[in-house]
Amino acid sequence: MPNCIFCKIVHGEIPSVKVYEDARVFAFEDINPISIGHTLIIPKSHAENIWEISEEDLAAIHVASKKIAQAIRKALDPTGVAVLQLNGRGVNQMVMHYHLHLIPRTANSPEISMTQWNIVPGDMALIRKTGEKIAAAMR
Amino acid sequence: MPNCIFCKIVHGEIPSVKVYEDARVFAFEDINPISIGHTLIIPKSHAENIWEISEEDLAAIHVASKKIAQAIRKALDPTGVAVLQLNGRGVNQMVMHYHLHLIPRTANSPEISMTQWNIVPGDMALIRKTGEKIAAAMR
Repeated sequence: MPNCIFCKIVHGEIPSVKVYEDARVFAFEDINPISIGHTLIIPKSHAENIWEISEEDLAAIHVASKKIAQAIRKALDPTGVAVLQLNGRGVNQMVMHYHLHLIPRTANSPEISMTQWNIVPGDMALIRKTGEKIAAAMR
Repeated sequence: MPNCIFCKIVHGEIPSVKVYEDARVFAFEDINPISIGHTLIIPKSHAENIWEISEEDLAAIHVASKKIAQAIRKALDPTGVAVLQLNGRGVNQMVMHYHLHLIPRTANSPEISMTQWNIVPGDMALIRKTGEKIAAAMR
């Protein structure tokens, strides 16, 4: 879809810190992370939300989410991982391309506040390093 | 699993306001709802979290979640639906049986706060009526 930032990431028109890719799915580090290791999983085929996405893409994304959650556990040893996916402006969906958030909480990090969606750019060097650790743990 | 409240709900040992069921999946209204229509989707086979659940159950739950989200849209006309699933005590998972929350926000209802997990019992008559509307919209 033209002017969709996530379609551009899938097509490499905007760079990203990729951690996983398969025929249907693309996963990369959020550059405005709520916590270290905050990862987004999206369908390559554009769909706005849970009502639009195909069952095949939905299943592929969630099977991939388990693999990526395993890699996050191996790479970061979190105390927990929140899985979040927002549909509609009423619940603050910001990018209108379906995306699943994996948000790990690590020891000594503060409680995850899922309402504080202030867009705060993260430390890109740390994001790249974390993405590399997660991608390495996938192998 | 003995003493698992969600296994007891699946087996009918604890009553619930069911909205959907298939071979792998059971869905019912949360009795401590964050919002009207707050629905839980669980695997019938006990698994604690995203790391334990089988890929087949994970895919079945998310395919069902799309159907239930469609029924919630039809029944309640929400401005958005948040999909949330917590793994581990570190992110406040309360019942240690995998469960996916569908949390609709309807017009004139306050913003959904996903950190306020105060256990507040809902109005059971309203919960039953809402569950019936969602179940009817599935048909």
